[in-house]
Amino acid sequence: MVHRLRFTDDVAGEDFSALLDVLHAGEAGPPKVMIVADRDVLAGSDVIDRIAKRLADSDSVRLMTADDAIEAGAATDRNSHGSTDVACVLSGGESIKNTSDGVDRVLDLINRLDLDRRSYIVVVGGGAILDAVGYAAAIAHRGVRLVRLPSTTLAQDDSGVGVKNAINAFGKKNWVGTFASPWAVINDRTILETLPDRDFRNGFSEAVKVSLLKSVEDFEFLCENATAIRDRDMDVAFDAIMRSCLWHLKHITAGGDPFEALEARPLDFGHWSAHKMEPMSDYTLRHGEAVGIGVALDCIYSSMVHGLTEESALAVCRCMHDLGMSLWHETLDDPEVVLEGLEEFRQHLGGRLTVTMLDGVGKPIDVHHIDRDSMRAAIGRLREIAAQWD
Amino acid sequence: MVHRLRFTDDVAGEDFSALLDVLHAGEAGPPKVMIVADRDVLAGSDVIDRIAKRLADSDSVRLMTADDAIEAGAATDRNSHGSTDVACVLSGGESIKNTSDGVDRVLDLINRLDLDRRSYIVVVGGGAILDAVGYAAAIAHRGVRLVRLPSTTLAQDDSGVGVKNAINAFGKKNWVGTFASPWAVINDRTILETLPDRDFRNGFSEAVKVSLLKSVEDFEFLCENATAIRDRDMDVAFDAIMRSCLWHLKHITAGGDPFEALEARPLDFGHWSAHKMEPMSDYTLRHGEAVGIGVALDCIYSSMVHGLTEESALAVCRCMHDLGMSLWHETLDDPEVVLEGLEEFRQHLGGRLTVTMLDGVGKPIDVHHIDRDSMRAAIGRLREIAAQWD
Repeated sequence: MVHRLRFTDDVAGEDFSALLDVLHAGEAGPPKVMIVADRDVLAGSDVIDRIAKRLADSDSVRLMTADDAIEAGAATDRNSHGSTDVACVLSGGESIKNTSDGVDRVLDLINRLDLDRRSYIVVVGGGAILDAVGYAAAIAHRGVRLVRLPSTTLAQDDSGVGVKNAINAFGKKNWVGTFASPWAVINDRTILETLPDRDFRNGFSEAVKVSLLKSVEDFEFLCENATAIRDRDMDVAFDAIMRSCLWHLKHITAGGDPFEALEARPLDFGHWSAHKMEPMSDYTLRHGEAVGIGVALDCIYSSMVHGLTEESALAVCRCMHDLGMSLWHETLDDPEVVLEGLEEFRQHLGGRLTVTMLDGVGKPIDVHHIDRDSMRAAIGRLREIAAQWD
Repeated sequence: MVHRLRFTDDVAGEDFSALLDVLHAGEAGPPKVMIVADRDVLAGSDVIDRIAKRLADSDSVRLMTADDAIEAGAATDRNSHGSTDVACVLSGGESIKNTSDGVDRVLDLINRLDLDRRSYIVVVGGGAILDAVGYAAAIAHRGVRLVRLPSTTLAQDDSGVGVKNAINAFGKKNWVGTFASPWAVINDRTILETLPDRDFRNGFSEAVKVSLLKSVEDFEFLCENATAIRDRDMDVAFDAIMRSCLWHLKHITAGGDPFEALEARPLDFGHWSAHKMEPMSDYTLRHGEAVGIGVALDCIYSSMVHGLTEESALAVCRCMHDLGMSLWHETLDDPEVVLEGLEEFRQHLGGRLTVTMLDGVGKPIDVHHIDRDSMRAAIGRLREIAAQWD
């Protein structure tokens, strides 16, 4: 699995070469490049425009512009954003994954612009756009090269480096998709600056999650720096993103199960309830927020049933709180419905129920049984803690 | 890449255990199994019914029947074939790949029957059905286990063991798809018996092709036994299938480029013209027949421009002829249109034009330039040879 991961300060500026360097020319000359942009990122910052301008000016690539797309007969919306160098603009958020429209649009452009397996799609956006565009890139010609520039803390510290590409179907999250490694991932610091506070903060729940699985040191780093991250100290925040991203990458590349053939899926710690709360809230609860609550909940459960200390479970709750995330969501008022998430979680992976819990910080264990009464009690305890702090 | 390949005499009878053995039970008990059947194979032989009956009677799997599908609300056509143990029947041939209907039907059943990543789809059919069902199995949950039972000589000696799963889009062959290894492939001898002569014979062009790339010995074996194969001597024919299939598998698993990241694609020897003639003929020319002609053509070209002897080129033509295949098709009356196939071949893979030619039997070479005049001359020479024999 080839994986090109770069961390840049300003990929649209002084670090532009980090992007240009991964767009390899083949024997056939400069490769075609198409930018797919998240509408909000395009509107909220000049990062994409600057990247597009520089790619358009470069002799080493052939940027496919909005005009190229129009000339090839595509229905584009150039006029709505005015960025003539961007061939495809999509609206982000979970809704892009609920139909195949976004995927079909990208496929149509790949076909019209004659992109092939040696061409590049440079996608700039949040996790949902990365998922949908990644799926389209993976199935066109059985794989067009994909360069991801995640625009959220969540996508930078977690999913951006992952190998899943999927959209929703039959009302179920990520039901159709593929495993495919991106050609490259560039985590850029500047691109995060225009992110609203809410989205900036909630991405760090995945960083807390992976630290609990992998590293006491990183967990302590996050606890100590949670308020600084919440207040957008970028040096600290980007350090936290790098650490988390590298743990995720290491797990995928060296963990021995990149394509989830095994039962256990430790990176989904805290996710069984999160995946249930998200649709219950009609996706008003963001993924990062749901994971923050789900991780706190499973830590409390782990302290009741397994070896994690109560002190550590409380430290996790405190860390999420300090990061600016709520520890409670009204969907938990209906614990029986949330508990159905356990069966759905089992079903998606198949086989036995296998949930990761903690025997201690940095000591994940796989369990095949969840004691429902203890989980209800853990939900009750979480409610008390949240009431104290939120 | 795990690859379970089995050769059986009668998988519906005495060799049933070969199938049952690859349907592993998980911790959660007997796995769900759904059969997807080619309508013609189901109608023309009792093989699928016998397999289905035995799976239904087995305690070690849970066969999803037509009744299960109907109960789950699926629109099935049980009444049209009467096989209550088969949940899904599809019509084969290239048309199943021209729309997403077949794929959508399989996805719908996977969803309704709650198949998961540890469930199995057992697909019995020709290459087009294997491609379409394989694609559906690959994208549902990012991969449901697929057991292929190829029902044609072509699918048994070539594509069945491959890692491509694709359907056509934008009028282009295999435009959307994935690379995914099947869970298992079972090449059964009995299943080939009801194949019409035309389809029985044309599958061996791929065997000739791979022998020309890999083995003087196997090429000579095919030349010596071509008439016996044409006359359906099953011992010889199944031996030829085994040899070809194992070369294809070896190339994929040990060739270092299973997912076609490199420019060269030697297994596509003779295919640039075949891929063009097929749609030109509205698919009245079968893939195996087109490959037979395409391989003969590129051998003549190789003898004109590269190191292959004229004697060997003629031996290839003789071998195809003895196998019962024609060396000519009317689409070649328009050589300029066929020559456009070179550019389309380049485009699908991207990068430079890279075509495999022969420096001798068992000595493939990659060339980046085709001399158009020599190729026109080769087409003329093929016409003469064909006129002599056909």
